[in-house]
Amino acid sequence: MNNLDKIMKPKSVAVIGASTKPKTIGSEIMQRLRDYKFKGNIYPINPKGGMIEGFQAYTNINEVPGDVDLAIIVVNAKFVLDTIDQCHQKGIKGLCIITAGFKETGAAGAEMEKELLAKVKEYGMRCVGPNCLGVLNTNPEVSMDGTFAESLPVRGDIGFVSQSGALGGGILNILKDLNVGFAQFISIGNQADVNAETALEYWENEDDVKQILLYMESIQNPQNFRKLASRITKKKPIVALKAGRSAAGASAASSHTGSLAGADKAANALLAQSGVIREYSLKNLFATAKVFSNCPIPKGDRVAIITNSGGPGIMATDAICEYGLQMAKITDATKEKLRSFLPSAASVKNPIDMIASAPIEHYQQTLETVIADENVDMIVVIYLPFLGLKDIDVARAVMEIKAKNPSKPVLGVFMTTSSFFSELSNMNVNMPFFMYAEEAAEGLHRLNQQRLWQQRPVGTMPKYDVDRNKAEKIMRQSIEEGRDQLTTRESIDVLDAYGIRVCKSGFATNIDEVVKIGNSIGYPVVMKMTSKTTSHKTDVGGVRINIQSEEQLRNEYNDLIEKLTQKGLIDGLEGVIIQEMVKGNREMVCGIATDPQYGPMMMFGLGGVFIEVMKDVTFRIAPLTDIDAKEMIKSVKAYKLLEGARGTKPAQMEQIEETLLRLSQLVSDYPFIDELDINPLLISEKTGEGIAVDGRIKVRMKEAQEQLGGCTCGACAGCCK
Amino acid sequence: MNNLDKIMKPKSVAVIGASTKPKTIGSEIMQRLRDYKFKGNIYPINPKGGMIEGFQAYTNINEVPGDVDLAIIVVNAKFVLDTIDQCHQKGIKGLCIITAGFKETGAAGAEMEKELLAKVKEYGMRCVGPNCLGVLNTNPEVSMDGTFAESLPVRGDIGFVSQSGALGGGILNILKDLNVGFAQFISIGNQADVNAETALEYWENEDDVKQILLYMESIQNPQNFRKLASRITKKKPIVALKAGRSAAGASAASSHTGSLAGADKAANALLAQSGVIREYSLKNLFATAKVFSNCPIPKGDRVAIITNSGGPGIMATDAICEYGLQMAKITDATKEKLRSFLPSAASVKNPIDMIASAPIEHYQQTLETVIADENVDMIVVIYLPFLGLKDIDVARAVMEIKAKNPSKPVLGVFMTTSSFFSELSNMNVNMPFFMYAEEAAEGLHRLNQQRLWQQRPVGTMPKYDVDRNKAEKIMRQSIEEGRDQLTTRESIDVLDAYGIRVCKSGFATNIDEVVKIGNSIGYPVVMKMTSKTTSHKTDVGGVRINIQSEEQLRNEYNDLIEKLTQKGLIDGLEGVIIQEMVKGNREMVCGIATDPQYGPMMMFGLGGVFIEVMKDVTFRIAPLTDIDAKEMIKSVKAYKLLEGARGTKPAQMEQIEETLLRLSQLVSDYPFIDELDINPLLISEKTGEGIAVDGRIKVRMKEAQEQLGGCTCGACAGCCK
Repeated sequence: MNNLDKIMKPKSVAVIGASTKPKTIGSEIMQRLRDYKFKGNIYPINPKGGMIEGFQAYTNINEVPGDVDLAIIVVNAKFVLDTIDQCHQKGIKGLCIITAGFKETGAAGAEMEKELLAKVKEYGMRCVGPNCLGVLNTNPEVSMDGTFAESLPVRGDIGFVSQSGALGGGILNILKDLNVGFAQFISIGNQADVNAETALEYWENEDDVKQILLYMESIQNPQNFRKLASRITKKKPIVALKAGRSAAGASAASSHTGSLAGADKAANALLAQSGVIREYSLKNLFATAKVFSNCPIPKGDRVAIITNSGGPGIMATDAICEYGLQMAKITDATKEKLRSFLPSAASVKNPIDMIASAPIEHYQQTLETVIADENVDMIVVIYLPFLGLKDIDVARAVMEIKAKNPSKPVLGVFMTTSSFFSELSNMNVNMPFFMYAEEAAEGLHRLNQQRLWQQRPVGTMPKYDVDRNKAEKIMRQSIEEGRDQLTTRESIDVLDAYGIRVCKSGFATNIDEVVKIGNSIGYPVVMKMTSKTTSHKTDVGGVRINIQSEEQLRNEYNDLIEKLTQKGLIDGLEGVIIQEMVKGNREMVCGIATDPQYGPMMMFGLGGVFIEVMKDVTFRIAPLTDIDAKEMIKSVKAYKLLEGARGTKPAQMEQIEETLLRLSQLVSDYPFIDELDINPLLISEKTGEGIAVDGRIKVRMKEAQEQLGGCTCGACAGCCK
Repeated sequence: MNNLDKIMKPKSVAVIGASTKPKTIGSEIMQRLRDYKFKGNIYPINPKGGMIEGFQAYTNINEVPGDVDLAIIVVNAKFVLDTIDQCHQKGIKGLCIITAGFKETGAAGAEMEKELLAKVKEYGMRCVGPNCLGVLNTNPEVSMDGTFAESLPVRGDIGFVSQSGALGGGILNILKDLNVGFAQFISIGNQADVNAETALEYWENEDDVKQILLYMESIQNPQNFRKLASRITKKKPIVALKAGRSAAGASAASSHTGSLAGADKAANALLAQSGVIREYSLKNLFATAKVFSNCPIPKGDRVAIITNSGGPGIMATDAICEYGLQMAKITDATKEKLRSFLPSAASVKNPIDMIASAPIEHYQQTLETVIADENVDMIVVIYLPFLGLKDIDVARAVMEIKAKNPSKPVLGVFMTTSSFFSELSNMNVNMPFFMYAEEAAEGLHRLNQQRLWQQRPVGTMPKYDVDRNKAEKIMRQSIEEGRDQLTTRESIDVLDAYGIRVCKSGFATNIDEVVKIGNSIGYPVVMKMTSKTTSHKTDVGGVRINIQSEEQLRNEYNDLIEKLTQKGLIDGLEGVIIQEMVKGNREMVCGIATDPQYGPMMMFGLGGVFIEVMKDVTFRIAPLTDIDAKEMIKSVKAYKLLEGARGTKPAQMEQIEETLLRLSQLVSDYPFIDELDINPLLISEKTGEGIAVDGRIKVRMKEAQEQLGGCTCGACAGCCK
């Protein structure tokens, strides 16, 4: 059961552990319910009975005369399990457990939380918490403040989920101060049962909730989150602050893809693919919430600026252009109309400078005129204090016009004092106001980002015809030999089995084979050693390129054997790969890394010697849609190289997309693939194809064995199986 | 004369154009002077005489009984020149011309401004303005508000120069609201005489001014600015907002260096080399001013965090680490002391979490203890609202401890409401407070930046022994032939004359010469065409690499001639350069671009095909010090490649530095060099040297001719000279 109605829209609430003692949570919650004028019945439960905050208290939940939808539990942790039993006997289906002292305190608490969840499941209940701040619904038909936050909420259209209780309370305070209101709030606390995903699902079709705000420290089920969020964000924005960026996890990685990954990249990728707007600071979270609360999603990205001062107009233009938004081309009709009332010193080109002396009427007339311009999608109104005008009057006048024209976003930049913003926080506003132009520009950018996301096709996950038998045979061989790292040859062969364009090659262990393969591929060729002990081949001279003839090939091979013998590395040598020499100076990289929490991630970007230095790579959580793959390719700086700079051939973008999608299919089929590098994915000078020239695959042994079978004794060739 | 004492510390002020009419500038200025209680005599001048704002008015400046140091002029523009004459007759040496209607209005106004300046010079006066907001000195011995800003100033230690009057007024308002005070303020307006540089020089040894804030739209004399600012910033911070970022200027450039440059890069470079902290938004300008106003420069970069909530502590840690600052290692003694009074649930490791219930006493004791820790250089105190505590009381208590320990920066992060900040703005504060952790982190970063700059050696500009005769001869030849673009061969030869390591090469115009040079250099060699008409040689197949033998060299040459003939490009061909083949896969770029306003700029970064895509380059204004050159090299991402990644040899850093310094000397000797590219500066695999493999030099014809002589008829070979 995913319906949270019993918790979020209860007809009656029992507060178990309600108290008359001031400054206790049991007293605060009662006060909030009373002061916010909860529409249903309120039943305080306290062994002493009597009256609590004006309500008749009952000594036991079973004594309550009517039905109870929601029990808010604030009793000591040791009584919580019994309390749940009692709630069950009373037929209660909704719990909000404020009480702390569970998982967050260690093993014993975690054990108790497990029992708690078992009871909740057994009784068919839903439960918010434990260890949380409570729940809140500002809909006048419910009017429930079931929290112990500092102040009563402002009605608005945000659904807010907070993983941190304390910070959640702080955020409620600040948002109230910013005059940003809520529809519903859930403090999920330890999220034993209800988590962010439950809330998302609940709010998906909840008309009261027009935008969703998340404060998260972890994502419980990334794939489920992605599924839900990417669907919901098509209808309403989700803005998330994901805290706890950490460098752990990446340090042990042995591949490029692994070392460039790391948990925060995974979170970033997941949120991007889900259409969730990620903010990195509370400040920006609030700013964005303020914008979505007061603006419709625009129809386009063309911005007009109305100002009474040139300087801030220029600064706003700079900031807007840096976000890639367009400065709207004001139509001639609009210009003419503006000229009819603005003084001659004013500029009617965008940014529209009404000059310093602009009276309130000019603000109104100009906004009214510009908002009607079909070339304008969004508007920024700038005000710099001018002798004789009062900032709040200007704001009121602007909002008056905005109220008559609700279809386009209008943002205010009022470079005035904090008292202006204090005044605003006690007013009804219908547009967001900022102190600085760049804050407004960021808001416009977020609006546009949401617009683009809503327009973005959902995409499909194509299923290619591949040779699974061949791939499995190769991987099983490696597993049976106890190797979690496939050889280069094996890696390339697995890629080949999955239809990825690899360069023509053959494997040789002696001079005769070397020559035979070289002659069959045709010159020039490349020769690369393959070894079970040496992983970075270039460092030991194990790669020879541009071999022009049979004679040169013979010489290079003999030289390699001599060098490896000298360095004592000859024992690890399996043989050499003779490859077609693909000419091209554009080296890309693609690969797979596994995040312990988020699972397999795809990487794409600039490869070769630059990979670790330039870090021009991007990540997405697997599996990819075709749109994901397209976006990955376009999102790296090196995309310009692929487009073909200065005489080079444009790369075959669709073929590169397909390479990523086939890799995605590979790791979906074999989730035990821990790391995979194609580096370089060389862009052929001749055809523009991306060709896998080198590959490395690493598996997680135990999982691989479970899926494919095969022994891991490490001593046999699979015979002991 | 650079002394501004008559303007900034006058003993008497005449307001010429003083008025009794409300809301006029002539009335506002009189009110400000009176209300801010100017310590000297105030003489309003108005043809009607009488009393103005309580002062005896005079009909003419000559009637004033005593001496006048400063005349603030607000009369109509057409009377300004005469007024200056009258001021001269009265013996006045300081002018502040508020009146607008000069250069900013067009040619006639500019002409009038020229006359104005001529008079100022002739009379030995100094003049602020015209078209400005006025001047201000909060020192109690002067106490002059000679502006028409909205509100009276707060006393503080900032010297503020604003190029925009309107914005300057806005900034004064906001800073007052932020409780950031001024020592002196100069609105330079059209900066006919006094400009930012004058103010810098004046404030260099002014004890009242502890930090300098600049709002600039242009820099009048970049080299002078650099000289002054780089000296002053060693003593006090200069923070600048440079507005008017623009893409103009770079579009016409034909070289890589040119196209990557652009005016804003020049401003950036100049400010960086001068130790000026550049902010890109007013918001950040204010935040940084607030920090410098209330914090000493720290002794190191180790930060301790004190918090009553874990979440914000983590967010602060994230932000601090992202700026490259260190989290302080709290000493055991400190930990022990903290444990003695904090509850057991508190964490005494950095970030120090006193837990939510921390009373005011814990804030005080913890700060007192941590501030004394020798491992701590800077401290952030975080407060999240907790039931029963008042934010402003906590702030007061923290400031009490800070007052007793002034030697270390302490920054407050109070995640509370705007009314807290309103209250603060009316209090005396001794530390900066922010709403969000990342704002405080930026402040710490700025403090640390100033610390590092003050420690940075000044550096020297070495003078190398070079062959100027050779360089001049080559350049003169090109000029005489009417070519502003030197050929590759000429370019390389000029570099060679300046002692820059170029790769061995020779020039050939026929097959016999080709072979002779190839044999003398030794194989492998590279062959490159040189042409007066084709500038991107690679695009037409004009570069042949890895030529292994005389036979191959013959073939490649013949093939080139054939190809160029086919393409109709043979006529432009001068010949071919045969070069030693330098092996290496690290291609850097260095060069020179000329900014129309800032003059020659040096560039260094990642070269080859990546240059335009990755844009991993850095700029500095020429001439370079050795420290500048070192910093340039270290500041690009590709520095890691130079350090030697995965088996490659580290580059010879000092030799690369020298290359930059020799280029700097070249452009200092010949400022007519408009653009210069060394691309690639190939890092030799064998020696680690940076070797100029290809070079292009472009000159500004007229200036080159003036400096070197030579004809520009374009038709002769210098014979007509």
